Parts: sequence; structure tokens; C-alpha cells
Amino acid sequence: MEKIVSLARRRGFVFPSSEIYGGLGSAYDYGHYGVLLKENVKARWLEAMVRERDDIVALDSSIILHPRVWEVSGHVQGFTDPLVDCRTCKLRFRADHIDDPEHEEVSCGRRPSKKPGQTPECDLTEPRQFNLMFETRIGAVEETGLDAYLRPETAQGIFVNFKNVAQIARRKPPFGIAQIGKAFRNEITPGNFIFRTLEFEQMEMEFFVPPAEAEEWFHYWVEERMRWYTGLGVRESHLRVRAHDAEELSHYSSATSDIEYLFPIGWSELEGIANRGDYDLRAHSEASGTKLEWVDTDAGERYIPYVVEPAAGVNRSMLAFMVDAYEEEVVADRPRTVLRLHPQIAPVKVAVLPLIPRNTDIAGKARALHEELRRSVVAEYDDSGQIGRRYRRQDEIGTPWALTIDEQTLEDDTVTIRDRDSLAQDRIPIAGTRAYVQDRLAADWTTPKPD
Amino acid sequence: MEKIVSLARRRGFVFPSSEIYGGLGSAYDYGHYGVLLKENVKARWLEAMVRERDDIVALDSSIILHPRVWEVSGHVQGFTDPLVDCRTCKLRFRADHIDDPEHEEVSCGRRPSKKPGQTPECDLTEPRQFNLMFETRIGAVEETGLDAYLRPETAQGIFVNFKNVAQIARRKPPFGIAQIGKAFRNEITPGNFIFRTLEFEQMEMEFFVPPAEAEEWFHYWVEERMRWYTGLGVRESHLRVRAHDAEELSHYSSATSDIEYLFPIGWSELEGIANRGDYDLRAHSEASGTKLEWVDTDAGERYIPYVVEPAAGVNRSMLAFMVDAYEEEVVADRPRTVLRLHPQIAPVKVAVLPLIPRNTDIAGKARALHEELRRSVVAEYDDSGQIGRRYRRQDEIGTPWALTIDEQTLEDDTVTIRDRDSLAQDRIPIAGTRAYVQDRLAADWTTPKPD
Repeated sequence: MEKIVSLARRRGFVFPSSEIYGGLGSAYDYGHYGVLLKENVKARWLEAMVRERDDIVALDSSIILHPRVWEVSGHVQGFTDPLVDCRTCKLRFRADHIDDPEHEEVSCGRRPSKKPGQTPECDLTEPRQFNLMFETRIGAVEETGLDAYLRPETAQGIFVNFKNVAQIARRKPPFGIAQIGKAFRNEITPGNFIFRTLEFEQMEMEFFVPPAEAEEWFHYWVEERMRWYTGLGVRESHLRVRAHDAEELSHYSSATSDIEYLFPIGWSELEGIANRGDYDLRAHSEASGTKLEWVDTDAGERYIPYVVEPAAGVNRSMLAFMVDAYEEEVVADRPRTVLRLHPQIAPVKVAVLPLIPRNTDIAGKARALHEELRRSVVAEYDDSGQIGRRYRRQDEIGTPWALTIDEQTLEDDTVTIRDRDSLAQDRIPIAGTRAYVQDRLAADWTTPKPD
Repeated sequence: MEKIVSLARRRGFVFPSSEIYGGLGSAYDYGHYGVLLKENVKARWLEAMVRERDDIVALDSSIILHPRVWEVSGHVQGFTDPLVDCRTCKLRFRADHIDDPEHEEVSCGRRPSKKPGQTPECDLTEPRQFNLMFETRIGAVEETGLDAYLRPETAQGIFVNFKNVAQIARRKPPFGIAQIGKAFRNEITPGNFIFRTLEFEQMEMEFFVPPAEAEEWFHYWVEERMRWYTGLGVRESHLRVRAHDAEELSHYSSATSDIEYLFPIGWSELEGIANRGDYDLRAHSEASGTKLEWVDTDAGERYIPYVVEPAAGVNRSMLAFMVDAYEEEVVADRPRTVLRLHPQIAPVKVAVLPLIPRNTDIAGKARALHEELRRSVVAEYDDSGQIGRRYRRQDEIGTPWALTIDEQTLEDDTVTIRDRDSLAQDRIPIAGTRAYVQDRLAADWTTPKPD
């Protein structure tokens, strides 16, 4: 993991947030390549969920919803962690982690981690429940303000919009509503880089189905979501599905399976697929007096749909893609680090490198090619340093193809195309480079990674 | 404006947030077409700012930054509105709006608007300053928590990352850092739909320049940003640039010009371009002890760059695009409402309509065409209702082209292509539809809107 953190920092994918003020614990800012990679992950999800399907529409609801939403959803009452105090060392811990050798104190990382075992005499209080929602207040004036919460999940914004969307989308169950957006959890964060942060992005889709079909759709979505990760190049051997046992299930769920990835910190959740039943729509119907149900006038039927929810984390997906792609190897006695990212999620698709930047003819050709390519894909012009160093930089940010313009280009209008994975170098006509890159991007991609 | 609100609601662009719980004042959720339109606006901005340029990189910083950031930036002290109370009616007002006939009470819209004039005897207190930042608290435990703020602008997240980004981007001034993200202001909202909301999205770019060049770049960016709006079809006659006078200037700015749009509520700010000088980098340098400066080792120079900032609102840009595109007209004695959106920002690029949906040959051809088209652009299959009704629906969501598959298609593999703006209907070969749409999307687009 340290290598990933170091690469992410060195190449401008991810920085510790507010670093000049000493940082803020588990909070990170995304640099240029991090933004591009993260945007690609989200775009691929939206493509698979919305653009390629007829049965799912998009939604973008507010982060600050009416506080009643969280009372009714059960979050005000039940979205808590049990915490204990140590009367000796004055630190606080998660009660359910107290016997776990890896457990951490409650401090959002602002103080160094300290295990109770290190304190000579830990004298723990009884556990108390603390809510994980960030609180705020709407209205500039104390007395008339309204206590509110930052959403801890995007899902509730979908449920409370169910009726609006269903009416307009002209769709009957099974159909889904998909949303990507930030969520916030004021929780204990063990500091595993961007795996768990106070502020994070979710990709959630609520799929509304006739109750009798819920189990079938639950299995469908577990498989479909696994296919999404493997389709984007993640090794099957580093993915698994783990069903929650009864104790683990959330208050709203009758069945949940996690898709886990083998991170350096061990198998950890990438995404949860839950059968939420009619818990949420029923609760909001009863509390609001608005019937969140499906009325089939033809069949004379009305029912509250069941919900199957695949809920993925953007940041931890991005981390999994990076971890899975990371490789160090020695080629011709020279070490290199390479991110074997699927071309569709790679931040930069193609680099254009003038072999001799001070040669104005070469530089001119390279600039022109770069201008041409960037009209259709993210292309980078790189004329800084020795060519070998430029290749290594592109390898580290995962650029699948590098085009080098040299003196031969001036003679025959061909360029060298270097493949990130195979390191093969071919000469192709400059006029064919755009089609080459687009064809390769559209083609199936077989991960070159060993199992 | 009511017509836009009604269309937005009817076609699923924008819904009042938390509506089933009585709404939350100025908060809105975005439905399917709203998400697509908003994403297109952001993508065009990112394209113009980052993808098409060599001198700007992307960033995505946290919403919750270290609270020191906001002390040093001047927001804790200075980002306030003056409020007054009425001792009689117990309502609160913005002191600087009290003589404005349009002024509203402080309630985030949760209580009906009530002007002081309507209260028989308004007995106003002296103004008090209230900070506009939403407050929250990091850490689940009261005693050890850290008071924090939801960012009121994305810009500060850029400034505090200046050194990290500048080192990695291998760029010297002039260069820029661009960011799109949510910001939050706990302010009095007069309820002009999505023009001003408590939670909103910004598109901000901080352009770091040698101090002597700041004024020149300021003018460059005012022009460049105007061109962005007109390039996406907004009428020039509905846009203007207005320079702030001395009283209006923010605490950090030596010059600001607003790009304003002629909304139904009058000329209102779309975007502000400010010369922030070295205010922010200097303040953060002094407070953090980290030198946020540019060191040119070759020239033996070091200086704190000046900053020119074009700061646009995503939501109000989207509103301006909708308002500018909205038209009601009568064609052949039939009224129609049409959104003449620029094809590049239209939520759906092409609709595929089987003339007789129950004819399985026609439906099959239409499905196949839809599958083909959606691989490259957002395409919609629409077989619900009379063809005229389907055309009207596509007109209202601004779909530039509609392809109709009819019995003739079965004979000669041609389809009717209907142009949203001219209403021209041509027959073209089905095999050429994909290229047709892509060529039209890439071509210059002349707004068909009257001045």
C-alpha cells in the first residue's frame, strides 16, 4: 500500500488534504491524474448502469436533505458506532474493535494511533452509541435554524424521489434509479489511504422490482457488478463475493453480499449488493403520507416495490483499480513501475513525445499530432527530459500508448507507437494514429496481469 | 421563469428536494435529463479549460477542509451578511435588502415570504453580522471534536494545494488549476429556482500569473469566458459584462467583472472573473509557513503569483442555457414548446422512434438502430404514444434529431430524420445515421434563436 500511496503522491493522483495545515486525518484531495482516473471510473459506471440500458435513469439529489428523511430511514436512531472511553489515557475506541489488534482510537487520525494495550492500565467505560452522521444547521440564525445532516448515503435521495421519477420515466418495475455523489460519515478511520475517508463518493443504484422477483434480481446484480470489475481488467482471482451473515445485516436488509477485493490490507469491501425489501419506500410512505408505490392501472394492481441496491464506492474502486494495475518489473536490466490500467479508465490515453524537442520540425509535427488526437481522447504532450524518463513517467500514470516523433517522421510521416504492456514498438503512419487509438479503446482488452 | 420551472418539473429535469416532506426551501434534486444536461455543461467547461489547453490541470479537493483554511482566507471573519430582527413580527431580514421591495425574510424558504411592509409596525433591531458558512463538527465525540465548515467556494482547496500541483505539473506561471465541485452557503435565498441555492456546484479555475501580467490575463479570461457561453449557443444580446465598483469588490479582489445573463428575474450574475492578486497565496504562506511561491531557478527569481479567477455556477449556467433555449411557437396551427439547446449540451442527442411500435419488423429495426447509436452518443428509444406526441416530448427536452422508422424503412433501409429547429424532415440511409449525428455534433452550430 505504501508504494501505491507514494506513486499517487509522486505523480499527482492523490494528496493529503489541507497538508500545509498539518492535514486533516482521513481526507484526501485528487490531483490531475486522480481526477481523470476518478472521472473515468464514474463514467464507466454511468455507462454500464444508465447509457447502455433502457431500464435505469439518472438522479442527482441534494447532500443536505430534509432532516425527516434521516429520522424515517432509521439513520438518526440506528446509524451509530459503540464507543468506549479509557479513564486512564483519555482516548476513545470503538467498542466492537477493542479486542481487534488493529483497532484504532477515535480521533479521525488527528492524533497518532495508540492501542489500548500500550497504555499500562486501560480502564474502559461502558460503550455508548454515537451517531455517524455529520450534523449542521440550516439558517444563519441560531434560534430559527433547522438541524440537518450531511447525507451518509445517496440512496435516501433516490427513495424520496421515487414517485417523481417513476411518473416521468414512464417505466414500470423492474426499473432503476442511479446516482453518483458525495456522502459523509463521521467515523473512526483506520487510515487506509482513500479506502475509507470521512468524505467519499458513492455510486448507488436502486432497482425497484415486484417483490416476488427480488431474490432473482439480487443474484442478477451480484453477477452483473462482478462482471463490471473484471470487464475493466481487475483480476478475477483478486475478487470474491461474500454473503453477510444474519448478525452483519443492516437494519433494512434481508440479504447482502459484498464484492471484496484483495487489497494489501486484506480482503475488503468494494461494493455491497443488498436486498432492501420494501423497508425504505414503506417507511417514507407511512411517514410522509405520499404513497410510494407502483400502480398498474391495466392489471388493477398496486404494490410497494422491493429494492435491490448495488452500492459501490468511487474512491475505493479507484484504489482497487490502481492496486490491481500496479507492477514493478525489470526489463533489460532496468527497473520500471507500470500501472496496467484498462485503457478505458487510464487517465491519459496517448502521449505524444517529440524525440528531440529542440528540433522545431519534430516539435511542430508532434504539436500538430497532439492537437489532432486531443480532439477525441485525452492526450498529453510531453517534451520534458530524456525519452526514457518520459516513457517511465507515462508508464507510472498508466498511459497505454506513447507516440514518438523522430527524424524518420520528417521523411516518411510515420511514428513509433510504444505499447505500455508489451513494450512492443511499431511504426505506423501518422495519419492512422487517431483511428489506431480509437480502435484499440473500443476493442476488448485482455489484462496482461498474471493471476 | 414559471414556464421553465414547470417544464423542468414536467420533463424530469429538476424537482424540489425532499418534496414529500414539504420541501426544504431553496434545494433541488436533478432528474434524468437534468443530470445529463448538467453533466454536459460540466464536461464542456472541463474540455475548454483542461482538455483543449496545455496550461491548466484539474483538481478535486475536499468539501471539508482544515478549519484553519477558512480563518486564513478571511471567510470566518468576513464572509457574512448583516441581518436585522423585527421585534414585532419576529422575522429576520438582510439589512442591506431592507429597502428593496423584493427583499425576503431569513428562513431558507421554509416559511412563506413576508415583506416587512406587510407587518403593521416593523420595529427593526440594529444589524448583526452572521456568517454564511455551514458549520459542522469532525469526530463522533463532542469533547474531542473539531469545528469545521462546509466550503463556501472551491477556490481555497486550489490555493492550499498550489505547491503540490505546481511541483508535479512541471509548469511555470502562467498556468491554472481547475476544479468542479459542490459549495454551500447558508444564506438568504429569494427562491429564484436553481439560480441561488444553499447547496450548489461551482466551476472555478485559478490562473497563476506573474504579477505584471495579471491585468492582461484578467481581460483575456473575461473574453474567453464570454466566448464559452456564446459558443454554446447563448444569445450575445442576452449577455453582458459588468465591472464591480469599489464598494462591491470582495476583500481579496482588486478587480472583478461579472458575466451577466438576462434572466426573467433581470440581469444576474452567471460568472465572476476576479483579479485576486496574491491575497490568498500570501495569506496561506504566512499562516502555514509553507512558501506558496514560484521559484524559477534558471532566472534566479522567486515570487508569489497573482491569481485571475473565472468562477462560474454550474446550476445557474444550466438555468441560463435552458432559459435561452426555451421557445413557444405555433407551427401549422399547432403550438409547440422547444428547447433549442446547443447539440453538445442537449441531454439526448438523438431519438429513435418506431412509427408503428406494434409492427415487430419496424420495432426490430428501430431497436437495432438505437443499440448502434447509443454506443457513441446518448440516444433514446421512444415508442410511447402517437408520433406527434413523441416529437413534442423530444422537442421539450431539446433532442436535436429524431429518427423515425416506418414501413418504407423495411423496403429501402432509409429513415426520416427530423430536425428539432428547422422541422425539416429528410430521408437518409439507416447506415449513415451514426456518421450524420456525429458530424453534426462536431460541426459549428448556429443558434436559430432570434435576437
